[in-house]
Amino acid sequence: MERITGGVTAAKGFQAAATAAGIKYQDRMDMAMIVSEAPAAAAGTFTTNVVQAAPVKWDKKIVAEEAFAQAVVINAGIANACTGAEGLEYCKRTAEAVETCLQIPAKQVLVASTGVIGMQLPMEKLARGVETMAQGLEHSPANGHQAACAIMTTDTKPKEAAAVFEVDGKTVTVGGMCKGSGMIHPNMCTMLSFVTTDLNISKELLQEALKSDIQDTYNMISVDGDTSTNDTVLLLANGMAGNQKIVKKDENYQKFLQALHDVNETLAKKMAGDGEGATALFETKVIHADTKEHAKILAKSVICSSLTKAAIFGHDANWGRILCALGYSGVDFDPEAIELFFQSRSGKILIYQNGIAADYSEEEAAEILSDQEVTVLVDMKMGEEEAAAWGCDLTYDYVKINADYRS
Amino acid sequence: MERITGGVTAAKGFQAAATAAGIKYQDRMDMAMIVSEAPAAAAGTFTTNVVQAAPVKWDKKIVAEEAFAQAVVINAGIANACTGAEGLEYCKRTAEAVETCLQIPAKQVLVASTGVIGMQLPMEKLARGVETMAQGLEHSPANGHQAACAIMTTDTKPKEAAAVFEVDGKTVTVGGMCKGSGMIHPNMCTMLSFVTTDLNISKELLQEALKSDIQDTYNMISVDGDTSTNDTVLLLANGMAGNQKIVKKDENYQKFLQALHDVNETLAKKMAGDGEGATALFETKVIHADTKEHAKILAKSVICSSLTKAAIFGHDANWGRILCALGYSGVDFDPEAIELFFQSRSGKILIYQNGIAADYSEEEAAEILSDQEVTVLVDMKMGEEEAAAWGCDLTYDYVKINADYRS
Repeated sequence: MERITGGVTAAKGFQAAATAAGIKYQDRMDMAMIVSEAPAAAAGTFTTNVVQAAPVKWDKKIVAEEAFAQAVVINAGIANACTGAEGLEYCKRTAEAVETCLQIPAKQVLVASTGVIGMQLPMEKLARGVETMAQGLEHSPANGHQAACAIMTTDTKPKEAAAVFEVDGKTVTVGGMCKGSGMIHPNMCTMLSFVTTDLNISKELLQEALKSDIQDTYNMISVDGDTSTNDTVLLLANGMAGNQKIVKKDENYQKFLQALHDVNETLAKKMAGDGEGATALFETKVIHADTKEHAKILAKSVICSSLTKAAIFGHDANWGRILCALGYSGVDFDPEAIELFFQSRSGKILIYQNGIAADYSEEEAAEILSDQEVTVLVDMKMGEEEAAAWGCDLTYDYVKINADYRS
Repeated sequence: MERITGGVTAAKGFQAAATAAGIKYQDRMDMAMIVSEAPAAAAGTFTTNVVQAAPVKWDKKIVAEEAFAQAVVINAGIANACTGAEGLEYCKRTAEAVETCLQIPAKQVLVASTGVIGMQLPMEKLARGVETMAQGLEHSPANGHQAACAIMTTDTKPKEAAAVFEVDGKTVTVGGMCKGSGMIHPNMCTMLSFVTTDLNISKELLQEALKSDIQDTYNMISVDGDTSTNDTVLLLANGMAGNQKIVKKDENYQKFLQALHDVNETLAKKMAGDGEGATALFETKVIHADTKEHAKILAKSVICSSLTKAAIFGHDANWGRILCALGYSGVDFDPEAIELFFQSRSGKILIYQNGIAADYSEEEAAEILSDQEVTVLVDMKMGEEEAAAWGCDLTYDYVKINADYRS
């Protein structure tokens, strides 16, 4: 497997377009479309929130019932959540607009929205957007990049990733784009991720691969602990790489898993590092845990702690907060046995050992914590399992972004 | 039951003192002592964090094994957490200092600390503080108030509450003091609460009353979701009201429960409203839930949501975030059936109904949310159970307080 540049149009046969439809934002692109030249097997994972946006309901049905999907239409600005029957009708009409323009059956058109909850979409602008984009579709890195820009809300950077590997002597590509960066309204933030591949693979295995991989990637990030009503990861596989169809968990399936994981993890980390108001990507790695599940719970507890996140913002080696967050995670352990380290490109230091502070230099710790990517390494000394979780620091800007009145 | 002014010295036979021991703060009182004239039955509840401070370990043993306790020594500035064997030794030496000064057995002396994790206490200053306080003990409202001031860390106000009721024609008093207001280091914050009563009651019933009441009071507040290593509630009953000893759950026990609940709820709400950086007390009341447990989970999910808390700070009627927080709480419900209201001294408005926004005025909503005490009322329309939870808004000052380097 090898990382390459590119995003959602990196894989063969995937085209994209974007447009400024004026849905809520002015003077910027706010709609994107992904189209596969051939019908693609579609897998999806969606928010576990009881309150689910209309596009989530629409997509879940397609992923569950249809053999193929061929297009995805995404808008930023309005989330189409808590919009009742009218909201669901807009999903249908968007799909029908694609059918009219591109002769793709409406039942093979997925939709996704991100933005303000409770507002209705301006349907005519949406339909005009689809028409415009249908004429601008291209299988090019530039168009993939435009799409990644168009779906941003409070994100400060577009987020793309791609990787290639070989199956049956054929080059297979996995590419994707995603957006963060908080939860919702008024900052129009939702985790949406779109990954495409030209691999030829059965729909069942595609879904299984996605479902298992999100547990270690998207589900291990947190910006603010608020699970959105719109969270969606879609994975389309159009088979255009020309490999023999993967129908069992063989070596080729494992190669795909590896590339998919790399793309998903890269996108997930980009989302965490670009969390609302963030100045740093904050990683917690737990090693030598007794079980994988415990490693994950411990890692996530640390990156979700408001106090720890504020300390990371202040470049403060406040290990008491980290220990505290491990302690209330629900996992049992001996606080006297574990070790804590801080780590970044500026170095690595032992900070806590034998139940008390290690003999470290506060200046050196502050230097390490001043990097844009900071890792807390937790050695549980209990077993062989490990896990990582990614978040960001808690800053004035997070409060500013989320306290400002909707406008 | 009737509320009265006063705090931890309101009940008969309880004395208090405070002093500036110079443990970490300068130019302010940072130690307090509570002494009962007669040995008192002692009940306690403690943090569930796996990482427990030395005073928590010390007190748990006394509450579990000793028939009585007679004094509590509290310091602010250093938490005595993650301090190893040395930290536990300091608890013992503090208790021995009380034994020397007041002839109260060291095994009947409870201790509590709040402040920076990982630093050792200056034992000589602590011992001198005990000596000074032993000479200044008084059963007076002024001394109770001084004690409430001395245990503050990032708290902006001392927190006291008291109530009286009658048993056997005798007046019984319950009084207490507590502190908040974040979790720990460097802001030296931990939830500590001390409640005293002159009721004559068996130790078993006293513990049972406390254990059940904290579920609806202290356990229903959150400032930042970080469960401290030092959380402690101590309840002392010295029997000096002269009532016949309560040994079963009769009418008199119920009267006590009511007064205890009133004192605990008042103290808990004061803690939430004075959370780090807070400008408002943020209450969520869930009514017509199917079970009490679900009502509590739903209420707590809303007051813990960072996005909702930031919106409260911005006086933004951002109901999508509230619905979202209810939705990810883990409780199942029909989002189309429930109703949301905002409520404060400025009025009450319906904000969400039938799965979509109600027809409300944003100006009126912002006016209601500008109060210092704001309530979100959630009508689940599922049953007869209800619960309340209390938090505060998320502000720039929360970040400021917690990002500043330890000093």
